[in-house]
Order: sequence, then C-alpha cells, then structure tokens
Amino acid sequence: MARMPLAFTALEGLPEISQGVDLAQLILISLGVAQLSLKTSDVLVVAQKIISKAEGRTLELHTVEPSNRAIELAAIVLKDPRFVQAVLSESSEVLRAVPHVLITRHRSGFVMANAGIDRSNVVGASEEGAGTVLLLPLDCDASAFRLSNALGGCAVIVSDSFGRPWREGVVNVALGVANLPALVDLRGEKDRQGRTVQSTEVALADAVAAGAGIAMGEAAQSTPIVHVRGVQLTAPFRSGQSLLRPIKGDLFL
Amino acid sequence: MARMPLAFTALEGLPEISQGVDLAQLILISLGVAQLSLKTSDVLVVAQKIISKAEGRTLELHTVEPSNRAIELAAIVLKDPRFVQAVLSESSEVLRAVPHVLITRHRSGFVMANAGIDRSNVVGASEEGAGTVLLLPLDCDASAFRLSNALGGCAVIVSDSFGRPWREGVVNVALGVANLPALVDLRGEKDRQGRTVQSTEVALADAVAAGAGIAMGEAAQSTPIVHVRGVQLTAPFRSGQSLLRPIKGDLFL
Repeated sequence: MARMPLAFTALEGLPEISQGVDLAQLILISLGVAQLSLKTSDVLVVAQKIISKAEGRTLELHTVEPSNRAIELAAIVLKDPRFVQAVLSESSEVLRAVPHVLITRHRSGFVMANAGIDRSNVVGASEEGAGTVLLLPLDCDASAFRLSNALGGCAVIVSDSFGRPWREGVVNVALGVANLPALVDLRGEKDRQGRTVQSTEVALADAVAAGAGIAMGEAAQSTPIVHVRGVQLTAPFRSGQSLLRPIKGDLFL
Repeated sequence: MARMPLAFTALEGLPEISQGVDLAQLILISLGVAQLSLKTSDVLVVAQKIISKAEGRTLELHTVEPSNRAIELAAIVLKDPRFVQAVLSESSEVLRAVPHVLITRHRSGFVMANAGIDRSNVVGASEEGAGTVLLLPLDCDASAFRLSNALGGCAVIVSDSFGRPWREGVVNVALGVANLPALVDLRGEKDRQGRTVQSTEVALADAVAAGAGIAMGEAAQSTPIVHVRGVQLTAPFRSGQSLLRPIKGDLFL
C-alpha cells in the first residue's frame, strides 16, 4: 500500500471578500460544499489578498502625498509616485530599484516586490496609480492565528507569490503561519546510512504554500483558499517570522 | 463538489539505487505496489540523488588532485581541498565563499551550495572529504526526458533541495523537466476583475517539486520518488533550463 497521499483541495464558491466579513464562516461553508471536514491536523492555505481585504488593508492612492524620495524613486522605477510612496511607507529598506522593478524589505521582514502591495483583483483599481491598492496584513502570523482560532485550531498559512533571485517565475511562500512548524530542524537526525544530518532545516510552510499555489491556480480561475491534508505537523511550532534570515548573515548575498 | 484534489503520493519500497539500474522498471513496480496507474497527465518527481546514482555520477575523492585555487578556497570555507576542487570542476562561477558555505553557479546554470555535490546517502561517504561523493547529472533535462520516455511519456521532474537568499530553510526545486510547463506565462490573461495580467510567470515545476518534497519527507524516512496527479499541464512545454534567470539582468541582485 502507498502512504496516504498529501492532498491539496481548492475550495470553490467563495464570494468576493470585503472588509469585516467572517472569513472563518465562509471557509466552513465552502468546506461543507466540498464535503470536506476540518481536522486540527489539516492545513488551510489562504491567499494574503483575501486576508488583507477582510482586514480592510486597502489604501486609496489619491489620499497619498508622495515624498521627494518617492518622486525621485518613481522616476527610476517608472511607477506612480503615490504608489512608490505607499511602498516606501510599508518598507524598512529598498534593495533594488530599476525600471519597472522595486524590491524592498517589508516592515515585517519579507523581501519582495513592491512591499507586497497588490493592484490586481481589487475592485476599482483599474490601473497602476489609480484607485485602491491592497497592503499586506499588519502581522501575518497574528492573522493566521486569528483564523486558526476561529476554525478550531487547524494549521493556517497566509501565503503570497514571490519572485526569486536566480530563478524565473513566482512561487507561493508563507508569510504568516499558525499551528504548523514553518521550519523543521533535521540537524542531528540520521540519514539512511545512519550518519548524522549536519545542516538541514526544511522550510515546510513555504513548501506547503508552494503546493497550494498550484491548486489555487492563477488569473481568472484562481481560488484563494486550499485545504491540505497529510502534512506531518509533529515538529515544534515555528512562526512565519522564523522563515526570515537575519539581515546580517545571509549565506547567499 | 470540490475540484479534484492535487495528490502527491510517495512511492515506497525502492531498493538502494546503483549505477546502471533500470529506474523506470523499479518505478513501475513501486507504482504497482501502491496500486497507482501512470497516466501521461501524471507527474513523477524524482530526487536528483537517485538519478545521479543510476547514471553513475559518483566521484572518489581520493582520486581528486586539488588545484592551488581549491586549496586557497578550502582554507576559507573550511572544507576538504579535494571536495572544493570537485565543486570548482562542476562550477562556472563562485558566488559566495565564507566559513562552511560555498555557493557557486553550476555548469548547468543552477545557483546552489557546493555545486549540488552530495555527501549524504552515498554508501561509503562516511564524512566530508572521505570516500565517494555524488555529482549532479550531466544534463538534468535530458535525464528527465530519458525517464519520461521509458515510462510512456508522463511528465518527469528531477528535483533537489535548495537554500534561498533572505529565507531560512531549504525547499525542493526543479533541475530537470520533461513534458511539463516548467514556467507558465500568464501575461495577457485576465484576472478576476477582467483586467489584463501584466507580469506574472509562474514557476510551476518548482512548485510541484516543493510539494513533492513534503511527500518525500526527510532524513531516514525519506522516499525519493513521488507520484503527482492533478497538475494542469496544458501550457506549452518549458524545460528546467527555462527556470534559470539570465546571469545579467537578475531583478534582485
């Protein structure tokens, strides 16, 4: 017999999410429609976008007053100065600014494009610099825990798609994590030849988020919530913040 | 009803892989044991390690003569000079060398630690600098296609675990890809509000590899082959090489 498969199921039929909705209630309805139960050993992966919408993390760009620095940077990256100001306000550091590219370190520590500010899938945000944009949740781990608590304690990952150095294309990663070992430390375990593993930590939450990203799909057919069954959750809890390397001491850079 | 789940099933009962073994035949036996069929719409994710073993990509370190550069670098990274020479021989460029860390660009373009040279799970490689090490396949895309052809044309991903800048922990990525769109181009598609998506390419093969990494598990319980059902394979084929950013023009660095 095979091991039980690791199964990712996208939940169908969620309405557009607006500020203040009871996301847990909507999820329970969708799970019912899918004839899926929710065990505490299950994981729900939720797109950051709908968490931000439910938490009202929208910003009207016409209310933003760009600083001189934002105006200068906007001329380099060829983006709306108010959009650039919104990115700077969300960031602790600018890492890369070239035409059409603005990579920063978000205040929460994530290195990502545009501080995670999203212009797509927000009703009214018809083009860059116009209308409404969506900021990341204030604290993605806290958002994950609130949802987990409302759902009886299952694991929750708040995920978003990230570009990567050296590799093309985006993959989903975990921004916020509740009740799941975001990072699993294998150091000291034995490999198949009985030798001690020296240096491997596994980014389990990022891997679950990446797999869920496939089930979510993209563009018009995308689904923002994925139910995951079969992840081994026995290692100690580690938060989404544990996935961030210290600013000093990055092995790669 | 839910969409069909995306299902990752680790194959059990594979023997230790040695040079020249008929991997396709072993996989078919394991699939039979797991009562899994193999459709051309399925994906097999195979750990690079067993591909390298089957292809005889082992190197006896005692046969390696370290160059002066390898000896100098070994003193910096605190590794065996013969091991460092093996890494240099497999690499086109050294990106980072500090104590215990040697990041290079592999000849095939992958940016990774130690040019992907593996000391664990090789019988006889009892510690760094002793015994036998395992090199990456000469051409991971070609290895994926050979296995795919021997299995009737299903999609195949040759995967390995990579560290990442800015984020802790390793995740599996795709080195070689056959019959699967490693990169899916969404540019020009419409989002849920009907606006055209501007800039998203999705690293589908990396996401599948990451999900399969969860099913593989780690250390003593790890399983090097995962059967995946439910991935949308309709986009045009793109190879593992398509996942590599050009050396010039990396957005992040």
